[in-house]
Amino acid sequence: MINLEKNDNVFTLTMDDGENRWNTTFVREISKILDEVEASTGAAALVTQSSSPKFFSNGLDLDWVNAPAEHPAAGDYRVFGGEFMALMGRVITLPIPTVCAINGHAFGAGFMFALCHDVRLMREDRGFICANEMQIGLTIPNPELALFRHKLPANTFFETVQLAKRWGGPQALQAGIVQQTTDIDNLAASAFQRAQELAPLGANRANYGGQKERLFGENAILNNSHGAAYHLKHASEQGH
Amino acid sequence: MINLEKNDNVFTLTMDDGENRWNTTFVREISKILDEVEASTGAAALVTQSSSPKFFSNGLDLDWVNAPAEHPAAGDYRVFGGEFMALMGRVITLPIPTVCAINGHAFGAGFMFALCHDVRLMREDRGFICANEMQIGLTIPNPELALFRHKLPANTFFETVQLAKRWGGPQALQAGIVQQTTDIDNLAASAFQRAQELAPLGANRANYGGQKERLFGENAILNNSHGAAYHLKHASEQGH
Amino acid sequence: MINLEKNDNVFTLTMDDGENRWNTTFVREISKILDEVEASTGAAALVTQSSSPKFFSNGLDLDWVNAPAEHPAAGDYRVFGGEFMALMGRVITLPIPTVCAINGHAFGAGFMFALCHDVRLMREDRGFICANEMQIGLTIPNPELALFRHKLPANTFFETVQLAKRWGGPQALQAGIVQQTTDIDNLAASAFQRAQELAPLGANRANYGGQKERLFGENAILNNSHGAAYHLKHASEQGH
Repeated sequence: MINLEKNDNVFTLTMDDGENRWNTTFVREISKILDEVEASTGAAALVTQSSSPKFFSNGLDLDWVNAPAEHPAAGDYRVFGGEFMALMGRVITLPIPTVCAINGHAFGAGFMFALCHDVRLMREDRGFICANEMQIGLTIPNPELALFRHKLPANTFFETVQLAKRWGGPQALQAGIVQQTTDIDNLAASAFQRAQELAPLGANRANYGGQKERLFGENAILNNSHGAAYHLKHASEQGH
Repeated sequence: MINLEKNDNVFTLTMDDGENRWNTTFVREISKILDEVEASTGAAALVTQSSSPKFFSNGLDLDWVNAPAEHPAAGDYRVFGGEFMALMGRVITLPIPTVCAINGHAFGAGFMFALCHDVRLMREDRGFICANEMQIGLTIPNPELALFRHKLPANTFFETVQLAKRWGGPQALQAGIVQQTTDIDNLAASAFQRAQELAPLGANRANYGGQKERLFGENAILNNSHGAAYHLKHASEQGH
Repeated sequence: MINLEKNDNVFTLTMDDGENRWNTTFVREISKILDEVEASTGAAALVTQSSSPKFFSNGLDLDWVNAPAEHPAAGDYRVFGGEFMALMGRVITLPIPTVCAINGHAFGAGFMFALCHDVRLMREDRGFICANEMQIGLTIPNPELALFRHKLPANTFFETVQLAKRWGGPQALQAGIVQQTTDIDNLAASAFQRAQELAPLGANRANYGGQKERLFGENAILNNSHGAAYHLKHASEQGH
């Protein structure tokens, strides 16, 4: 379902489950792979990719969502929401650089997973990124809204969550959702190369992961009620 | 002063008052039109446009502001500030998709009105969007600053409110203030078409309008003191 | 070390200390110059530039940081952090328009100084802007994170602070870090011209500086727990 390889300092996680739809079993398989990645030490980076020719990850496992009892292998439905969100919270604060190779459609939960990485590369000619909840009549949970808002510019954020916009590669690049586009033949190699470049940042995991916690975690400095000038002017009182 | 038409699922509000400057009467006329729009049910979207060849809306009715007693038809000056801001708060959370066709200058209050819509199209060859308060020595009220900040990327926001930058169509597109530009002959048709595409999102008004309240309303999740990772990791406790 | 000229309404501050690295003496020299600038009245703007052919400002004075006792002329190391941050807080809220001409590398503290200005022009063919702390294993203090976040779009912010990205002129323009690029021969003249255009905004210093305090200071409206719609709808209660 999920494969992991390591070459030089780069772990490559490959989702190998067709449309790579999310259920409790899928969440736990990814989580186990991350345990292995996090057990490493020293310079390292993670590439996440899909083996599908068409999908990065096409969202929730809707067959299971609609009839959990008929798909017992997909796992306990009642714990899914909390476990999936917590996994996303783990990925966004992973203490090594993370690179996501978006080879095809990334919808809903698949978009969230991509966005939790530090860098995104996307195939330029095909595939869409989309948070389609509003279009299919679902409510976007608060933690998902917070994720989109903290990763995207204000205008891109609004078009994404309110208008359910489908972003192709070039538009996603322009909008600040992905950082690079490439043809499909060079996608995996480009992601690997970017991960190799960034891997040294992962050598000091306390610093690299600690900053992600400061950006995105409890009482995040960026959400403090005071502005930048206040923090700058009172830095000596705060011990900086 | 304000006209309303409906074709298919699209309401078209046309400001037909010359420079479309804002006074209490103008606010209340728009508000009455919105009552009619909101009384509808089912899939729907709103296009806002101007009948002027040169102006979308050129800001406050300064003749009236400077001598309210001489312009009694413009309405009660004392209630204007609160009623205008509240109308903007209503537009930004309108429970159907809203598309603004900026055919010419949109200054001050006119810029605010445009920005409260979900999507903006702008004539590409002429006309400027500008929050010119700083240039003419006026203080920008806090609710207006909040509006600009929650709709624009940080750099665009700062140039807009602090430097009173005049944005032409192509620059406004690049800066994320408008989502499309077109020649004037195709502006109305393009806005109508975009509204038709978005109208289905308005069918579920509780979801569409409710999310705008969550983004922009009281105790907005996005302004919470915690970051995205915190919300993700604690989603199960929050009932998601 | 630091020179100040005035032509028409434009003050030009020139850093003339080689790589223009930051120590306590450098902070205090800049601060003295700002006293002179702030003692002026009427329309005014500030241009900040460097006399070096290669560096705008290359960051902390590392020789001094590593052996303060051997460089007594660089000043008291113990007060540096608080005084430097407070100076940045002063620059970001300076009550006149400020224009920064980035002629070469701006690293770490040099990037912060540039970002505290209202407008940035950058040489297009050479030089990098970079917050390189993560790369060299240093922790970015909270006030610096707040500065970057309040000035840059969310995606640019993250690449800057987490990935220590080196931004050349054209990329910095695209990312919203600088507002204009030019060849080196026209950089000083372009910065001066931009400052002349903006100088009238400095005539009303209470309004121009006051708004910067509202954007970036204590209990900044933008960081309030409520969203824009809440502020708009409750404007009349807030006295707007």
